[in-house]
Amino acid sequence: MSASILKSVAARRTVYALKPEFPANFKLADLQATVQAIIKDTPSAFNSQGNRAVILTGETHKSVWDSVVNSIDSPDGKKRPASVRDEAVSSIIFFTDDKVTETLQEQFPAFASAFPSFADHSSGAAQITTWAAITESGLGGHLQHYNGYVKAALGDKIPQNWTVQAQLCVGVPATPAGEKTYIENPVKIFD
Amino acid sequence: MSASILKSVAARRTVYALKPEFPANFKLADLQATVQAIIKDTPSAFNSQGNRAVILTGETHKSVWDSVVNSIDSPDGKKRPASVRDEAVSSIIFFTDDKVTETLQEQFPAFASAFPSFADHSSGAAQITTWAAITESGLGGHLQHYNGYVKAALGDKIPQNWTVQAQLCVGVPATPAGEKTYIENPVKIFD
Repeated sequence: MSASILKSVAARRTVYALKPEFPANFKLADLQATVQAIIKDTPSAFNSQGNRAVILTGETHKSVWDSVVNSIDSPDGKKRPASVRDEAVSSIIFFTDDKVTETLQEQFPAFASAFPSFADHSSGAAQITTWAAITESGLGGHLQHYNGYVKAALGDKIPQNWTVQAQLCVGVPATPAGEKTYIENPVKIFD
Repeated sequence: MSASILKSVAARRTVYALKPEFPANFKLADLQATVQAIIKDTPSAFNSQGNRAVILTGETHKSVWDSVVNSIDSPDGKKRPASVRDEAVSSIIFFTDDKVTETLQEQFPAFASAFPSFADHSSGAAQITTWAAITESGLGGHLQHYNGYVKAALGDKIPQNWTVQAQLCVGVPATPAGEKTYIENPVKIFD
């Protein structure tokens, strides 16, 4: 019975220790095709397709994360973005196009208050599916939320109405993921 | 290069025309195992694991959706929940445990305003991954948001602090999914 997607989502883990490179048989163009497919196929309220993504790599990746590091005062707070700058080969930036949400709110005023949450559902699915997909391809990564800093660093490279939702920071795993703990969380049947 | 999850997410579609049965080689216990695995493996902010789910089937499924039908006045508005009541074999109800979000907000006050959105990201991933998984298993389905009505119908079967996020209504597809249109939505590389 077991759907193949279950293996894929079970293999996805937070991996912080990264080398700034792609696996031997996986290139930047493959990453782009992967993210493009997921952005296309992730469902959205009324098929509104409000997910957006860009891929940072090379000099832009370094300069955006250097800007995040420099925007944070505390030495401890600088550590994570500095590790992304120095150890990740790429970051996938996920956005929601607020214009899409606002148009839905105008078209369907009865559900206006629900659309921001629906946009978040769709964004989360795109983020986490991408994380599972890159894991299948031999990359590892971790999901970060330096949303305001990243938005400021990207400046006019992206439309003003794109809100940053998350950064998936990826590279070749340098060490495996650590242990993960799970709560008791039974899915009951009401018959 | 292509990760198997890409095929799975591309195959997931909205299917409204359902027969109230499971595929020959897929049982209610398989659905439960599928949802349980996804609830377990879907990541969450600080591994807070705030996703919850229950599976409705049989008499409870019928009575909950009948209650939704009866809560809506307009004949047109009754049509979708009536079709779920009569044509879906089961509904998976996704919740967020608000206590988990509130605890995070107390522990990390600097990110307090972000945690509801993070909970939505995680919930959306669980919903949409489940949708892809049941599609792989020969079921079809559609995602609904009669959240308040469903919460009222479930009453004290679920804790008060579980907020309903979505209902994935499933059955054996009676007719294939219709055409889907896509916008131009390029994922650019910033190098």
